[in-house]
Amino acid sequence: MRFKRKSKDPHIQNLAAIVGERHILYKKEDLLAYDCDGFTIHRHLPKAVVFPQNTAEVARAVKYCHDHDLPFLARGAGTGLSGGAVPLNGEVIISLVRMKRLLSVDVENRQAVVEPGFVNLKLTHAVSDQGYYYAPDPSSQYCCTIGGNVAENAGGAHCLKYGVTTNHILGLEVVLPNGDVIALGQNGIPDEPGYDLLGLLTGSEGTLGIVTKITVRILKEPEAKKTVLAYFDNVADGSQAVSDIVSAGIVPAALEMMDQVAIEGVEAAAFPVGHPKDIEALLLIEVDGIAAGIEEQVQEILEVCQKRQVREVKVAQDEQERARWWANRKTGFGAMGAISPDYLVQDGVIPRSKLPEVLQKINEISEAYGLRIANIFHAGDGNLHPLVLFDARKPGETEKALKAGSACLQACADVGGTITGEHGVGIEKVDEMRMVFNEEEINAQTDIRDVFNPKGLLNAGKLFPTPGRCAEVKQEAKSV
Amino acid sequence: MRFKRKSKDPHIQNLAAIVGERHILYKKEDLLAYDCDGFTIHRHLPKAVVFPQNTAEVARAVKYCHDHDLPFLARGAGTGLSGGAVPLNGEVIISLVRMKRLLSVDVENRQAVVEPGFVNLKLTHAVSDQGYYYAPDPSSQYCCTIGGNVAENAGGAHCLKYGVTTNHILGLEVVLPNGDVIALGQNGIPDEPGYDLLGLLTGSEGTLGIVTKITVRILKEPEAKKTVLAYFDNVADGSQAVSDIVSAGIVPAALEMMDQVAIEGVEAAAFPVGHPKDIEALLLIEVDGIAAGIEEQVQEILEVCQKRQVREVKVAQDEQERARWWANRKTGFGAMGAISPDYLVQDGVIPRSKLPEVLQKINEISEAYGLRIANIFHAGDGNLHPLVLFDARKPGETEKALKAGSACLQACADVGGTITGEHGVGIEKVDEMRMVFNEEEINAQTDIRDVFNPKGLLNAGKLFPTPGRCAEVKQEAKSV
Repeated sequence: MRFKRKSKDPHIQNLAAIVGERHILYKKEDLLAYDCDGFTIHRHLPKAVVFPQNTAEVARAVKYCHDHDLPFLARGAGTGLSGGAVPLNGEVIISLVRMKRLLSVDVENRQAVVEPGFVNLKLTHAVSDQGYYYAPDPSSQYCCTIGGNVAENAGGAHCLKYGVTTNHILGLEVVLPNGDVIALGQNGIPDEPGYDLLGLLTGSEGTLGIVTKITVRILKEPEAKKTVLAYFDNVADGSQAVSDIVSAGIVPAALEMMDQVAIEGVEAAAFPVGHPKDIEALLLIEVDGIAAGIEEQVQEILEVCQKRQVREVKVAQDEQERARWWANRKTGFGAMGAISPDYLVQDGVIPRSKLPEVLQKINEISEAYGLRIANIFHAGDGNLHPLVLFDARKPGETEKALKAGSACLQACADVGGTITGEHGVGIEKVDEMRMVFNEEEINAQTDIRDVFNPKGLLNAGKLFPTPGRCAEVKQEAKSV
Repeated sequence: MRFKRKSKDPHIQNLAAIVGERHILYKKEDLLAYDCDGFTIHRHLPKAVVFPQNTAEVARAVKYCHDHDLPFLARGAGTGLSGGAVPLNGEVIISLVRMKRLLSVDVENRQAVVEPGFVNLKLTHAVSDQGYYYAPDPSSQYCCTIGGNVAENAGGAHCLKYGVTTNHILGLEVVLPNGDVIALGQNGIPDEPGYDLLGLLTGSEGTLGIVTKITVRILKEPEAKKTVLAYFDNVADGSQAVSDIVSAGIVPAALEMMDQVAIEGVEAAAFPVGHPKDIEALLLIEVDGIAAGIEEQVQEILEVCQKRQVREVKVAQDEQERARWWANRKTGFGAMGAISPDYLVQDGVIPRSKLPEVLQKINEISEAYGLRIANIFHAGDGNLHPLVLFDARKPGETEKALKAGSACLQACADVGGTITGEHGVGIEKVDEMRMVFNEEEINAQTDIRDVFNPKGLLNAGKLFPTPGRCAEVKQEAKSV
């Protein structure tokens, strides 16, 4: 190990005393890796990054920050897509990556307890030999942490049938912004008496407290799975097939869609599967459950697709083929790098019946801004992911991409939809919150935040627009 | 109509001006019907009962109470079992029974909008010809209102598979305690940005606001249903069968249990079905879904029961038989009236694996207090309903029943369970909240309540223990 000169800053010294000299970063060259998360447009250096090992250390670090008026925030794997872990105000970052243990598995009551830094996919790996799995499956699941999933109320391809993270959280241990530790949820029992604080904390984007222990539901692996791939010449037919499948009373485990630009991207990247490039839309549909009924459901899906002029439709022949199709889909965002120097992913939600109308509108936005937009998304729950392709090296194109992305969200809000399904608001969409909430509705929420976080030191400037501060932030962002 | 003398109380006059002379009650003889709800042990007269017809009238009545420091609360059908609608403080009761319209049904997006006074079962009746239904099915569903269901986060027999009320609420219009009106939920889109206020309001037992419009999810009626009835000589075998069914990966739509005392009651009441009276436990198990897989599931359930020494097990032969079995179960609480002058129903929740241990403990409590206790409950989700049988005419027996009921809840809390699954805390269990929450956890919740309800006029004295006030209330209760 290289020699580390001790900091002269007393705050750094005191925080180092809490977590240990080896578990704090404070030199500029070390901090550079923490100036953004998966949302890379805004970059700010933290004051320091501490790596506590247990709840007591988190609580002591938080209490120290609280008592000394130091802004602070929590960070998991840093894969968030809306800037929730960006240290806007030179925060002390409390990284939870060392708290990565699987604490217990209770198959009989179908639950597991993990530390926040435990990686999502590892949970399924840990329980799969007993026939169980953890349902929420964001595309980043091979590296994102369950603590981060709780903060963002993360979704995933299979959330259509199984629900998003909040539907799988049974208990939380939380360090409040003053350093107090509370436990929410009684041994995985749903509908606790009193207010639903578990639901309130989940998806609060790190603004109400820092989660240090998580009890999650694990599910029995379904007896059978079938995966269908359908190619449509016409995007309207594909959208209509989505509605038809749901109307037929089928609840697919997943019902994903990609458009032509997206297909161009995934076929140029690491996991091509040979999708035809001249189709307007593909659907990736998965049904699961007991083996006996699966074939009938697949048959019904094939019939719906035929009725909607599908060009080709096929069922995965084995687990290898199924895995290839999913790898192609799940690495879809990153795949855009193969056809564009930069891309901005958006995350709007609409009523399912508005799919054709909004896809058309996104097309118009693409033309108006002169930027290609790819769509890869959870069609079954109307959760769109327009990917605006741009080149940051061209002057003004980043701003143009941001505007095009915002216009896509406005199109969602205009049909009664909303501005984020699973990526969170973070820094990225604080202004867009006004598309869906009026002043009183925002105040009702910030009043609650202030109960938990009266000094406003925890992850300030995120999730809600605070007029003065926001304008300032956006201004700063442009100058980075 | 009989002549009504006008009140001289200016508050009554002013409230009458808001809702109309014909839509207010204020004479003692009229108010007597509103001195309690389904929890009849505590009785208090309201100041008045108003019957607004729309959101604007609710908002004006609330604002009037707020501005004039009059305590107030909302009431639906008055079927609540924990005293949530009892006017402890001489409240103005805002009855929502005139707001009982079904406002819209949107089959394509699977949602319906109702007013709060709309009766639960009527929603299923309204959409069943299109093949849809509303899932939460409290046993009182033929008369309880969806507004009340939201306040209590009501459950029901079929919540094992389909979740409780909060899992089916997509949007709420709420009159806040100051008379402001806010809308939560965007057109039925799950995972809205910002905090989960929808979840916070649902189950808040009428302490945060008054719900005036509700968007609910409706589900496609399953293609097939099969109902199984299993009789066990030994309660431990019955409990073990519950665990075995769930462990086998089957998710029954319902998995209900009754013990010997309960069977004696239901067989003596309005819907006997000929259950043998010498068995220790029966299970009522329902599976639903696509037709193709149902038979295999039933077969697996029959095998599990055989393995656990079932005396007899049978499948309902037709819809009539199924309906008879369910009527017998769903009127089970009231049926206790056939074998006991009075009964007190409790509502604890435990991890499913603790079922045999806690049932044994309830037996011991029954013996210790010399009171029979019947158990009719949602075994699949570990939601117990011990029914303490007593005779209020015998001096001291009501107090003894209350203590026995509380001891049952302590037994649930002792194994890591909680004190209410679906009936709410109300007045009944404010003290028992301390069995599951410490002072900080209660304060975290009352701090939130105070954000919504700073003057403390809305449904005060409910849900949380407030030491001074609580002791006083219990004292008063005893003297009624």
